[in-house]
Parts: sequence; structure tokens; C-alpha cells
Amino acid sequence: MRIVIDAMGGDHAPVAIVKGAVDAARKITDELILVGDEKRVREELSKYIYDKKQIRIVHAGEVIGNDEAPVRAVRSKPNSSMVVGLSMVKEKQADLFVSAGNTGAIMAGALFLLGRIQGIDRPAIAATYPILKGGVALLVDSGANVECKPNNLLEFAVMGSIYMEKVLNIKNPRVGLINIGTEESKGTAVLKAAYPMLERSHVNFVGNVEARELPNGVCDVMVCDGFTGNIILKLTEGLAWSILKLIKNKFTESTISKMGALLLSGKLKGLKRDFDYTEYGGAPILGVRGAVLKMHGSSDAKAVCNTIVKGAAFADAGVVQIIEGSVVELEDIQISE
Amino acid sequence: MRIVIDAMGGDHAPVAIVKGAVDAARKITDELILVGDEKRVREELSKYIYDKKQIRIVHAGEVIGNDEAPVRAVRSKPNSSMVVGLSMVKEKQADLFVSAGNTGAIMAGALFLLGRIQGIDRPAIAATYPILKGGVALLVDSGANVECKPNNLLEFAVMGSIYMEKVLNIKNPRVGLINIGTEESKGTAVLKAAYPMLERSHVNFVGNVEARELPNGVCDVMVCDGFTGNIILKLTEGLAWSILKLIKNKFTESTISKMGALLLSGKLKGLKRDFDYTEYGGAPILGVRGAVLKMHGSSDAKAVCNTIVKGAAFADAGVVQIIEGSVVELEDIQISE
Repeated sequence: MRIVIDAMGGDHAPVAIVKGAVDAARKITDELILVGDEKRVREELSKYIYDKKQIRIVHAGEVIGNDEAPVRAVRSKPNSSMVVGLSMVKEKQADLFVSAGNTGAIMAGALFLLGRIQGIDRPAIAATYPILKGGVALLVDSGANVECKPNNLLEFAVMGSIYMEKVLNIKNPRVGLINIGTEESKGTAVLKAAYPMLERSHVNFVGNVEARELPNGVCDVMVCDGFTGNIILKLTEGLAWSILKLIKNKFTESTISKMGALLLSGKLKGLKRDFDYTEYGGAPILGVRGAVLKMHGSSDAKAVCNTIVKGAAFADAGVVQIIEGSVVELEDIQISE
Repeated sequence: MRIVIDAMGGDHAPVAIVKGAVDAARKITDELILVGDEKRVREELSKYIYDKKQIRIVHAGEVIGNDEAPVRAVRSKPNSSMVVGLSMVKEKQADLFVSAGNTGAIMAGALFLLGRIQGIDRPAIAATYPILKGGVALLVDSGANVECKPNNLLEFAVMGSIYMEKVLNIKNPRVGLINIGTEESKGTAVLKAAYPMLERSHVNFVGNVEARELPNGVCDVMVCDGFTGNIILKLTEGLAWSILKLIKNKFTESTISKMGALLLSGKLKGLKRDFDYTEYGGAPILGVRGAVLKMHGSSDAKAVCNTIVKGAAFADAGVVQIIEGSVVELEDIQISE
């Protein structure tokens, strides 16, 4: 596999990206291609000992910033690391594109350059969601499509199931529709229409799931529109960190609890790791004709390394081809509506 | 003030409701009226010593269950504790109705019996949301209106501000519109249309707020549709409890951490209390012509007591009248759209 990495995307680029790539190269045998300002990237690379046959640089003179309007940025910067990297996937010069850059631009670039899989109306960003007792679920859509039609939710369910099964090795993943009650009659008009479509599909649909149950792993694929997904992802992140901070404050209030905290510090670190999104690698963009992984903008070298290492399986599993093969089933379900 | 309490609503009714009322009577001077099956309620009351001038019973022979369809239940059970209690508020025989029963039925009953405040299109349920560093924010709507129009969000903002200022004593409360980004251009069509309406209103609008910031108290009134509100409330509840459970498990894994946990047990209890919704009293239904508080279905005696004690301020503050007086402003803003 050949993995192309956007060396210029993210809050800590190119330093953290290059370090993460070097670390990843020590763990996998895949070829890694760093796309970005050649001088800057070479400068960073020179800090490390690495296999020059495994890591190479492709120059891209432009950078798409986090505050740029996605569509305009992708159109007006053909030499950006993002456009160059995605083009390599399009031209079959690479099997996977990884970036911590502007999420909207990655999505727009993937749509323009790779195109949608025929039969998929709305590609989605699928985020891995940590389950407290261990493991992860997949949250689709986590932010790409603010407003959705019922058939989009069906698409998310099918694509999410395939990714969960083929890349994260969960057999017959349970698909839940995020709603405000478990009864079929609950929720918005879109959710009410999506429910029977999911029931008729071949995914392992377990019905509506309430937000209260999500952290307990009530299902493996959590389906919702991108607005709801974004709210869930960000609230989980904000709440987990706030609670851990609160615990830390509580535990240092008195001498006795300080002693207790000292004894427990190892456990607290383990707990922090449970909520550490960097452990789980990037978020796949599903429904486009190529493998694309989006990393958190604040990704450090460890997150970059993990995403690359775990990302190899994404390209390897042929997810794009499997989704292409599943589209016929979707059309049948939608027609029978 | 005269507070009428649904003795038959909730998972632990009438036992917990009656005990909660007796406890509350020791803290406030208001008259408490328990509505429900007279025999059952009297039986419970007989377990306690209480001032018979302060607590009295009004008989209601029917009960609306949690699984009943709200509108049908309210229409077909005129002698239910819920309908009888709400009717007393309507007939000015009571100043506040409190219930832990079927949320949909409380909402439907309040709409049918009390009616909407003129100029308010959609009454809402406003839940108190715990802020981790202390205090609460108000989440409006937390579940009554699954789909909303922009003017509904404006109504929620105005009603929530009034409640926050008059009942929870927050001066000039900051109002945030829950969205997936802070820029005005973010989110659904409804949110984009609501933003300028909120800007033109007299509420202290601080703009869009992201879900990540909600636990930090980024604003005092969190405005959203009832679908989003329900997701936020339930995810917060589920996540907080799951994390605390996880901490408990981590801390009892080894002998050393068990010792640490022992030293910290007081702190852990304090932490649990921070997430204990029973501390904060019930959720007001705003926009109907009467003061109504909805409690969590699983409310225990402590939650019932707290809701009654804090609820007195709700009836006392004249929130309904103040909302009535604010409606003119709303119409102006909507017309100028």
C-alpha cells in the first residue's frame, strides 16, 4: 500500500505530521508519501533516521488554511498539499490520503477530485466513538451533511457497517438510529421515514437508540445526520475532559485526598487514555471513490502515527469497492418506498 | 402560594412523592395539595408527622401511565391526578403544578387546560443543565418540540431568559444558540434564520455556541430545538454516569488503588452530587398560561422535595405574566423578517 500524507494540514504541521510518519514507518511496511513544501518537510525529516526507500516527499507549494472557504480553496489552490495528495489517489498513484487539515476542504476536495460512488447521494464523515467499557463505535455522519434525507441515513448505515466489519473487524455490526426514543414513531419526519428503510435493508438494524445509551456501546454503527453527529461528538469530548478536570480538582482539595490521588495517579492516566481520541486513528470519509482519512486538527505525532498505522487496513480492505457493490441493494429499498 | 402535586406520577409514586412533599413542608410555608387516590395518599401521609393545615389531599381516581399516548390519555381521563391538578391551576385554586408523570401528557394537559400564552407559538420544556464549575444553565427546548421554526427558537430564548433572571436570579443571562460552529453562517436553514432574529431581540445574545463548550457554562440559556435538546440532555446524563462508574471500576482494580479510593470516597460522593439532577429541581414548561414543573420520572423523595422548595419561586416570580408582557417584542422582530 502507498499512503499519501498531507504534511501541511493541522495545527501542528508539518512538525507533528512528519514525526508521526517517521514513527509509523517503523511499525508498517507500506510506502509513505509526504506531500507539502519540500524544503520544510525535508528540514523536519532530516531530524530523524528513517528508511529513504519507505518515506518520500512530493512537493506542493500551496497550503489550504483552516479558515478558508472549502470549495473556493480547493478550486483556487491546485498546488495545495491537499489537492495534490487527493489527485494522487485519483490517479492511482496512492491508495490512501490522510490529512489533519480543513475538514470542509478535505470533504470538498474528495468530492471534486475522487467523486461520489455511483448510487451514493451523500458521502459522510465517520468518526470513531469511544465506548467506555472498551472498543469503539462508528458515528456516521459526524458532520459532513447538516441536513439529510431518509435515504442518506440508509446510505450511512450501509457504509458504516461495511467499514466496521472490514476495517475494524466487528462481525455483523449492530446499527442503531439515534433518536429521542426507542419507539418507531419517535423523532423527526426524516427519522420516521428512515426507520422502515433500515428495517428492510440487509444491515443488522437494532432500531432507534437513545443518546443516553451511546457511551455504553448499545450499537456498533450510530446513524444520524451530520448536525446531530457533530453535537454528539463535541459534547462527548467537552464533557469527558471537563469531568476529568473536575476529578483532578476534587482530588487535590485536601491533604488526605491528595494522598489518595497519588495512589491513584496511574489509574487516572489510564482513564485519560480511554477518552483520548488520538488512540483510535482518523475518521474515514465514506462514499467517495477513494480511501480518505481525516484526522483531528490538533493531532500530535502520536495521533498521526496511529492514523497511518490503522489507515493501512482501510486501503487494504477494499472498502470503496465493497460499497460500490452494495449500492444496488440501496436502490431497491428506496424504490420500494 | 398553593402548590398542587401529582401524587400518582413517576416511577416511585405515591411513596416518594408523599415523602418529598412532607419534607418540603418542613422547609417552606406554602400550602401543599396532593392530588391522587385519596386512600393511597392518606396511607402514605399517615407514616409522617406533618402540619395538617399545610398539606391536604384532593382526590383523583384515575392515573395516566407512562406508556399512554399523551393526547388520548389527557382527553379520556378527566379524573386523572394530572388533569385534576392542572385544572386547579387553571381555576386559580393553585399557583403551581408539579408532576413526575408522563412528560408528553403533562405537556398535552398544560396545552389543553391552561392554553398557550398569546403570541407564543410553541411552549417548551426548559431543563436545568449542570455546569461543571458550579451552577446551572437552562436548556430550552429540552424535548417538547422535535422540529422547530426560527421564531420558535426566538421564543425559547426570550422565555428562558425570563426564567433564568426571575427564578434562578441570573442577571442579564447570556443566551447561546446551539450550533456546530460559532460563525453566523453555520448550521441548518432554521438556525441561520434564527441567528439574526436573536441578534435583533432584547435578549443578551452571545451568538452560536458549540456543544463542546456547554459543560463549561459558555452561556446561561442554551437554545435549540427539542430533538437536539433531548440528545444533549440524555447524552450528558449517560456519559456522566458511565464515566463515574468507570472511575469506580478503575479504582477498585488493585489493592493500592483501593486504598486510594478509600481515601477519596468523600470526594467521589461530592462528584456524584455534581451530576445529580435531583439537586436542581424540576423542568419548567414555559409558554403556557400557568406555572408547571416537570420532574424526572425516576425522582426520589429528595428530588420531589427540592422541586417543591425551588418551585415556589417559580410561581412567586410571576414568570407567566412577564412572558405575556414580552410577546409584543417578539412580534416586532418576526414582522421585520
